Amino acid sequence: MADINDERITLAHGHGGLASHRLIRSAFLSAFSSPELDPLDDAAVIKLPSDEISFSTDSFVVQPIFFPGGDIGKLAVAGTVNDVAVMGAKPYCISVGFIIEEGFLITDLTRIIKSMADECEYAGVRIATGDTKVVPKGAADGIFINTTGIGIRRKDVRLSGSLAKPGQSVILTGPAGDHGAAIVVARNDLNIHGEIVSDCCSLNDLIEKLLDELGSKITVMRDPTRGGVATTLNEISRASRVGIEIDETQIPIRPSTRAVCEILGFDPLYLANEGALLVILDNDVVDKALEICRAHPKGTEARKIGEIHDDLGGKVVLKAATGGRRIIDMLAGEMLPRIC
Amino acid sequence: MADINDERITLAHGHGGLASHRLIRSAFLSAFSSPELDPLDDAAVIKLPSDEISFSTDSFVVQPIFFPGGDIGKLAVAGTVNDVAVMGAKPYCISVGFIIEEGFLITDLTRIIKSMADECEYAGVRIATGDTKVVPKGAADGIFINTTGIGIRRKDVRLSGSLAKPGQSVILTGPAGDHGAAIVVARNDLNIHGEIVSDCCSLNDLIEKLLDELGSKITVMRDPTRGGVATTLNEISRASRVGIEIDETQIPIRPSTRAVCEILGFDPLYLANEGALLVILDNDVVDKALEICRAHPKGTEARKIGEIHDDLGGKVVLKAATGGRRIIDMLAGEMLPRIC
Repeated sequence: MADINDERITLAHGHGGLASHRLIRSAFLSAFSSPELDPLDDAAVIKLPSDEISFSTDSFVVQPIFFPGGDIGKLAVAGTVNDVAVMGAKPYCISVGFIIEEGFLITDLTRIIKSMADECEYAGVRIATGDTKVVPKGAADGIFINTTGIGIRRKDVRLSGSLAKPGQSVILTGPAGDHGAAIVVARNDLNIHGEIVSDCCSLNDLIEKLLDELGSKITVMRDPTRGGVATTLNEISRASRVGIEIDETQIPIRPSTRAVCEILGFDPLYLANEGALLVILDNDVVDKALEICRAHPKGTEARKIGEIHDDLGGKVVLKAATGGRRIIDMLAGEMLPRIC
Repeated sequence: MADINDERITLAHGHGGLASHRLIRSAFLSAFSSPELDPLDDAAVIKLPSDEISFSTDSFVVQPIFFPGGDIGKLAVAGTVNDVAVMGAKPYCISVGFIIEEGFLITDLTRIIKSMADECEYAGVRIATGDTKVVPKGAADGIFINTTGIGIRRKDVRLSGSLAKPGQSVILTGPAGDHGAAIVVARNDLNIHGEIVSDCCSLNDLIEKLLDELGSKITVMRDPTRGGVATTLNEISRASRVGIEIDETQIPIRPSTRAVCEILGFDPLYLANEGALLVILDNDVVDKALEICRAHPKGTEARKIGEIHDDLGGKVVLKAATGGRRIIDMLAGEMLPRIC
């Protein structure tokens, strides 16, 4: 009979019967217990503090599932917390959906669950509802996690990728590409000098501080995940119909990330971050914003990296360290699968 | 270069770059367009009609993805609509997360998307936010879909699996096991007389009618999905600490479903429904409830199948057609993987 004491996940753990119930009670409820989750009804019943919300979903398929700086569980919580928070909302609760391959180690599952619970505590959110499916061996690769979050919107700000205005500045709060570089190194077992650690973390406290202090002076916040800084800036330039010029000499990039990119032929501007923000804000508050970021453990390397323009043909342009300028477009193809 | 006009999904469609954006615009936005989704920000911004919500998540891994009566897309919308609605809420919006295997046919994806859009329209919900990941060939089996729903709670009812009371009656609104039987037949290519069609559908309109008419006389509503009627009744008996007796002669089961079960050795009481409800309600409104159900296209075969007891040792007991009684427990093992 399938049991939490068994070593591996079996199909019975996903069937909804006795084994499922035991797994839910011993592995999930013990870590995620909350007034919303505990009744185990078909849906959680929640009284929100307000009816103005932000709502975001993300599925996580990262490989390897454990990497320096985090794991798929921490990433799944932080990723959705950040997506909700960058729209100017306080993350309130999240749902979790697991798809697990038959044969997955239960010790790995409990490690991932622990990591999710810790990140929820750090970010101040609760897991309100969940679901677990098990698929036969070979029908998935290990574990996939969907998280969907609800945040309570602040009424004093309005943020969107479509609100960048010419004359504003672009801040990046941490070194570009740290998550992508950490995944590449973990996957390829590269021998790189200087450890590379994913920046994966919840940024809602930093976001809250910035909005508390600078409010409506900030018009865009985005976390540059898949596709990195380059892709996210392209999304913003398209949505806002503006040009963006970034200065190569000002973009923080760790030497170890640069080394990985040189070995493998990647451009760090296209490598994912999972714990850094692009912030677009009025020029007169740049210094104050940098001060706030640098006082925060996750923002010590914050820099102004560029400016919004009304020309540049609506493109993202890089002013190179050597003096030239080149257009930074979205990638046409694929650089690195299963980065998040 | 990857494009929506290509025949198959490539890793580039999941990378966040040009190919992703084209897929999102041509396949998803054209079908799912809504004021919340269209800005394509990191999170949807929503003004809910109320701050009292129900919130539910489900991942769908059904195999085959197309089956008589539906497909994984219709199932993903209806499943979450129903989970939200059975808690006494009006489904308002849902999120959708796709995990797609490299090489998946784009025509199959657009067919699934169409089916989701149609079911959303039928149920009166909108897709507010979404995410798409692509994993390399072999890392998933075709397509998995997570949906997470928000419903607006009615204030005039209180429903939970823990609120069944001795003396109440149990109604089942449709034939047991139709979804499970349809999947088994589709998977095994069995030659069964009489077509078996999944009951997969959104039931929020039927639920709303029942609650409008009978309000607080109804204390439990559940859709018996994974594990079927038997497992769901066990969950209710445990949560409410009551016994439940069901009468075998009263349980609606289609002859074709019975035939499948006889051939394969399944018990129809453990086969999933995806378009039927278990309703537990006061005895004095049973006739009225059956009348409401039978006037609805999805409830024509509704029957009272049992009663809640304060004895029976907190078990679910079947009064057999032959006169004996036996305990119907949760299944210890696994009967049928990837049913939803």
